[in-house]
Amino acid sequence: MHAYRSHSCAALTAANVGETIRLSGWVHRRRDHGGVIFIDLRDHFGITQILCDPDSPVFSEVEKLRAEFCIRIDGEVKARDAALVNDKLPTGEIEVFIRDLEVLGAAAELPLQVFGDQEYPEETRLKYRYLDLRREKMQANMMLRSDVVSSIRKRMWNLDFREFQTPIITASSPEGARDFLVPSRQHPGKFYALPQAPQQFKQLLMVSGFDKYFQIAPCFRDEDPRADRSPTDFYQLDLEMSFVEQQDVFDTIEPVLRGVFEEFGEGASVDQDWPLISYADAALWYGTDKPDLRNPIKMQVVSEHFAGSGFAIFAKLLEHEGNEVRAIPAPKGGSRKFCDRMNKFAQEQGLPGMGYIFWRDQGEGMEAAGPLAKNIGPERTEAIRQQLGLGVGDAAFFLAGKPSQFEAVAGRARTVIGDELGLTEQNRFAFAWIVDFPMYEADEETGKIDFSHNPFSMPQGGLEALNGDPLSVLGYQYDLACNGYELVSGAIRNHQPEIMFKAFELAGYGADEVRKRFGGMVNAFQYGAPPHGGCAAGIDRIVMLLADTANIREVILFPMNQRAEDLMMNAPSDPMPDQLMELGLRVIPQD
Amino acid sequence: MHAYRSHSCAALTAANVGETIRLSGWVHRRRDHGGVIFIDLRDHFGITQILCDPDSPVFSEVEKLRAEFCIRIDGEVKARDAALVNDKLPTGEIEVFIRDLEVLGAAAELPLQVFGDQEYPEETRLKYRYLDLRREKMQANMMLRSDVVSSIRKRMWNLDFREFQTPIITASSPEGARDFLVPSRQHPGKFYALPQAPQQFKQLLMVSGFDKYFQIAPCFRDEDPRADRSPTDFYQLDLEMSFVEQQDVFDTIEPVLRGVFEEFGEGASVDQDWPLISYADAALWYGTDKPDLRNPIKMQVVSEHFAGSGFAIFAKLLEHEGNEVRAIPAPKGGSRKFCDRMNKFAQEQGLPGMGYIFWRDQGEGMEAAGPLAKNIGPERTEAIRQQLGLGVGDAAFFLAGKPSQFEAVAGRARTVIGDELGLTEQNRFAFAWIVDFPMYEADEETGKIDFSHNPFSMPQGGLEALNGDPLSVLGYQYDLACNGYELVSGAIRNHQPEIMFKAFELAGYGADEVRKRFGGMVNAFQYGAPPHGGCAAGIDRIVMLLADTANIREVILFPMNQRAEDLMMNAPSDPMPDQLMELGLRVIPQD
Repeated sequence: MHAYRSHSCAALTAANVGETIRLSGWVHRRRDHGGVIFIDLRDHFGITQILCDPDSPVFSEVEKLRAEFCIRIDGEVKARDAALVNDKLPTGEIEVFIRDLEVLGAAAELPLQVFGDQEYPEETRLKYRYLDLRREKMQANMMLRSDVVSSIRKRMWNLDFREFQTPIITASSPEGARDFLVPSRQHPGKFYALPQAPQQFKQLLMVSGFDKYFQIAPCFRDEDPRADRSPTDFYQLDLEMSFVEQQDVFDTIEPVLRGVFEEFGEGASVDQDWPLISYADAALWYGTDKPDLRNPIKMQVVSEHFAGSGFAIFAKLLEHEGNEVRAIPAPKGGSRKFCDRMNKFAQEQGLPGMGYIFWRDQGEGMEAAGPLAKNIGPERTEAIRQQLGLGVGDAAFFLAGKPSQFEAVAGRARTVIGDELGLTEQNRFAFAWIVDFPMYEADEETGKIDFSHNPFSMPQGGLEALNGDPLSVLGYQYDLACNGYELVSGAIRNHQPEIMFKAFELAGYGADEVRKRFGGMVNAFQYGAPPHGGCAAGIDRIVMLLADTANIREVILFPMNQRAEDLMMNAPSDPMPDQLMELGLRVIPQD
Repeated sequence: MHAYRSHSCAALTAANVGETIRLSGWVHRRRDHGGVIFIDLRDHFGITQILCDPDSPVFSEVEKLRAEFCIRIDGEVKARDAALVNDKLPTGEIEVFIRDLEVLGAAAELPLQVFGDQEYPEETRLKYRYLDLRREKMQANMMLRSDVVSSIRKRMWNLDFREFQTPIITASSPEGARDFLVPSRQHPGKFYALPQAPQQFKQLLMVSGFDKYFQIAPCFRDEDPRADRSPTDFYQLDLEMSFVEQQDVFDTIEPVLRGVFEEFGEGASVDQDWPLISYADAALWYGTDKPDLRNPIKMQVVSEHFAGSGFAIFAKLLEHEGNEVRAIPAPKGGSRKFCDRMNKFAQEQGLPGMGYIFWRDQGEGMEAAGPLAKNIGPERTEAIRQQLGLGVGDAAFFLAGKPSQFEAVAGRARTVIGDELGLTEQNRFAFAWIVDFPMYEADEETGKIDFSHNPFSMPQGGLEALNGDPLSVLGYQYDLACNGYELVSGAIRNHQPEIMFKAFELAGYGADEVRKRFGGMVNAFQYGAPPHGGCAAGIDRIVMLLADTANIREVILFPMNQRAEDLMMNAPSDPMPDQLMELGLRVIPQD
């Protein structure tokens, strides 16, 4: 017999009754019932009930077992009484009478119970991650992650993509976040950087003549803490294709992601049609470039109804160019209590408030209530109602001013309204491509033009477009939004050196600066670069959505805490003096 | 029609004759034949011949094309004359009459030709890697690598292993090489390290209750230059299993690797039986712990024939304990010229020389020639011949002294003899497990005991064995040798804190030191650690063997040069002053 097991703890059924078997696993739970000891023995695969009565040759040793001891047992499989069969367990038909016991690994008193659902502070969970990971939910999350990554790989291979590993110790990559640096020992005083993404390398792969690349790629960004991102590294499905246009990229990645969400979504509905929404429309309709389309609310411009109206504040604002009034329709939100709550929400978010109108049935017909309705009069109020398609029991909220100053709050209000009124569908994954991102933005104060997103995207209209107003140039750049998260980001790249230098010039970067910062890629583009494009999908995000958690640390095996510390491994830590010496570095004492 | 292509450059056959098609790719070669221009248009998939006669509307533009221009063409598929069909090309039946041309990416004068087999200095190849990678051999190597990794993954999944990603920014890992450090911004003066291998994490995964783990894992070691290793990072198939013994690990990985070598070995024979050879036997028989078993030569101890013999040097050496005489049999090596050359080889390797005997046919029968034969006389010479199983035309070489001082040279001599005499089989992958590594070794000068290999391996005989002579303790540790390379290394781990502390104590590490250096793992082992073991296989090595190259940079997309520089991306480079400031570091000026 094998030294440790003849079966896993999920394998034994009534068919094994009478057999002498060997199992190894952990003491999940121990119960003493009138001199008889029951042990739920757990391994990665399942649980088997072990029974030890006082006649067992190992009774006194079994008595000493505590939770999470790792043990090997020999025993005989017996059928359970019909009344005691447990339908929820694959092994619920049997129990094992223990005959021999070996303690493989004893367990000290536990700082964290594996059995049960007790909650623990995150610091405890991270410090004793090996215990935390034994818990059912964490085992399930990690298996889900592993399965998702494998499924993605299979799907990409089936589309004739090849996976290549790009360098991890390399030069700084211009993704806009902070690099992690790695000091060089062979060149003291010089530094490598960990890649923020394999952006330059995947583009160089296209220039190298590979046609379809992907990688489940580790990406490194020295980020400040946030619940939904890791402070050090994260994983992307990174892909790039040669000789493609934007729609080709969509047609490629859509079935991959749709397939993954259908495979692992546990029956949630997965949208089949993924609309293309321009960046400008997304801002107007949803107040964000990562809208949650499960929420049916779509904002609208209603300026015309307030221009010159009796509501002086709005009417006055509208006299200045660039100001607008926008409405957030709130079907079923037609109560003063709800409207006041939302008004307060807007105030908490830093706005003066949100005006509102709600419609109620007053016996003799519909009545529009709220101060706004009174100020602008019934005609304008009715026009608004008709534009928004609302009726009795519904409400609408209004924000006015420069859209860039209230859009984000409007977006968050839309989310709260959708949630509170039960408008946002559950059990659904809703996707939308956000397209036509502006290439440039102007600093609100200085007016200085800079890239608003990825500087390597191809401007729509090419070189010619760059000779006009930079702020009106759109890029072949796109995001995929899913349930309010940005799941994918990508672009058709700017592969022509002439257009690239011009694009950077508009943002104030001279040719020398471009050559210095992105020399590898710019040089490469001189030798017959193909048109190419691609995208990157966040693996951690996808798994978070599928595991229905908003905390990224629930889907990472050994995450850092929010201060970027690994409490289990004690990182970061003090270096050895001779290590610093070799690297030619000195630590500056901190105050 | 698609903006860039209706077909790949490998797709068109006689079946497409008459069609109007669109192709994109690179100008591989351009030939002018009496006013007609032929272009071999190349993409990732293949080559198609494009033909342009002076009637073509784009003749003058085609005339301007140079090698490696990236172009899009439209044209009409025509059948080639029977005499001009090229059987070697999938598209050899047709050619395309060009009607329209678009230059997608122009190419400056090339520092490196893609077409043809011209050799270039490695620095040129690495600086213009994107051109180097377009070459046929490099495309093939990278596709091979990608295919091998994918095949390994499929095989591991089929064995119910799950792939998990372990942290890359973490704490120092005790693998014996130098760490790459990563300074922390949030904790100035403290450092993370990149993992030399996921050793501790994979063991923690087993403690966390996952049963079978694997990962195609990046490993980071700050190594000094060598042809067969990368100075920064490399990839391993890393795997670990719970509740296993040594043979279980062998039974798991053998079919995976055998399958990969059979799948990609291009018909080379792949050994089906992989012998287990003890570390001690490997040293004796092959002079190395990574023997090339395609070479049939097996060394033997022949001390008895020299003890008290007339060959005074050897006889005297053998009076001291620990000294031995070993023979390297050299079938077909029986010429004075060859024997003298090998003697000289040993001298070049730092030994005084290698004595030899060779056997020749002298008309009246076999004669043993060489100075040694004369000195020890015919009886002893004949006994040696019989022990070694040699005959006319064969030779034997002899080395004497302390085996540790000549073993390595003996091993290299064995390799040279096998190669020069044509004894070493070609077109074969020969494997052997090297087992029973000693846990400890004594420093030759100080006598201090230290770990000879991995300190985390389980000593054979457990705690009890550690109470005897440390130098006689063997570990459950193993390597897999293939054709003279170490392909795999692994161990059954020491999962019991008590045995671990004792094992470290013998090597001079106190409990506090162990807790400080390996705290994460030692703590974990207190909470019910399962027996576990595994191994890691070198991906770069496997691909090097399959691609038949001894230079690791031939199987890596964007490798560093031997000074650990990336000439294409300009890494490492000077940091920005504010980056250093944020990290709390100062660079010490170098002399």
